[in-house]
Amino acid sequence: MSGVQPDVTVVRLGHRPQRDKRITSHLGLTARAMGASHFILCGEADDKVLETMTDVSTTFGGDFTAEYAKGALRTIKRMKADGVTIVHLTMYGEPHPKVAAALQQTERVAIVVGGAKVPGEIYKLADYNVAVGHQPHSEVAALALFMDGLMGGVAGPERFPGARLEVHPHPSGKVVVDHSEDAKSSE
Amino acid sequence: MSGVQPDVTVVRLGHRPQRDKRITSHLGLTARAMGASHFILCGEADDKVLETMTDVSTTFGGDFTAEYAKGALRTIKRMKADGVTIVHLTMYGEPHPKVAAALQQTERVAIVVGGAKVPGEIYKLADYNVAVGHQPHSEVAALALFMDGLMGGVAGPERFPGARLEVHPHPSGKVVVDHSEDAKSSE
Repeated sequence: MSGVQPDVTVVRLGHRPQRDKRITSHLGLTARAMGASHFILCGEADDKVLETMTDVSTTFGGDFTAEYAKGALRTIKRMKADGVTIVHLTMYGEPHPKVAAALQQTERVAIVVGGAKVPGEIYKLADYNVAVGHQPHSEVAALALFMDGLMGGVAGPERFPGARLEVHPHPSGKVVVDHSEDAKSSE
Repeated sequence: MSGVQPDVTVVRLGHRPQRDKRITSHLGLTARAMGASHFILCGEADDKVLETMTDVSTTFGGDFTAEYAKGALRTIKRMKADGVTIVHLTMYGEPHPKVAAALQQTERVAIVVGGAKVPGEIYKLADYNVAVGHQPHSEVAALALFMDGLMGGVAGPERFPGARLEVHPHPSGKVVVDHSEDAKSSE
């Protein structure tokens, strides 16, 4: 993958704490693991779900941030006015590999992920309405697959500096390097 | 992508109906959208979640099936004895692009997706323990990304014959072809 990776913010629409807490936290963790830098939660406020996605950085590194924003349309309009390219994930949109390729030189991208009901205005506001397949499936899967194309793969360890724990690949076991132990042994 | 696509079964471990219903249904819908043919639910029985994933075929086509199986280890052992290649998704495993490439000539693959606690025996039973990145994220995202490499992309319309509704890509609107209307108008 050539070129510089865009700075990515993921915007989750219409969050309902009781019903959506696990899907929204999966969206946040996926956004972080794929190399997004920021997450904006719209819908109902939910501090706990925001903590779930940012707490993981304390252990596994990086500087992923998350915030709540009231008013999804206003938030997206403001980003667009500020020069951010708006991508809306929907099963009705254009094929994702085509759009990911078109965005290779883009500096800042907001990926908007729908909730229960997406207002029609979002479709018009978006620079790209993007479909990851045209079957009903999962916004978590759609986000992962679109970001995979946009970022050129899953984010590597260089994306997560300052990790206390680092997982190394192994064919059948669990290898976790604990850097806080390094610190202790060098005291 | 050259070669024949493998026949894929997704096995979900340790399902708990109350807590996991949405994540498990997202796993099932993602499995179907990525071209898996079958889903096996382990843990606690849950007819409703199985219906969620198979009902979608009535509208959107294909012949994706889903069943409950008691005893995850026994189920996986039986598949393995029957010649199915077992892939276990875990953040501790080997990099996913390498494994997806190694499986290009494989006829039948079971992809095992963990629940809350995965017994150590699964790691030994698996032909491949596969990590989609080494960060904590989402089993839905991991399944989508691994299957994307294994199947050479998201499944196309040829995978879903007999669809009543078919979504066509559009840059800003919703285009849904209703084949039951075709049937009516030709009466």
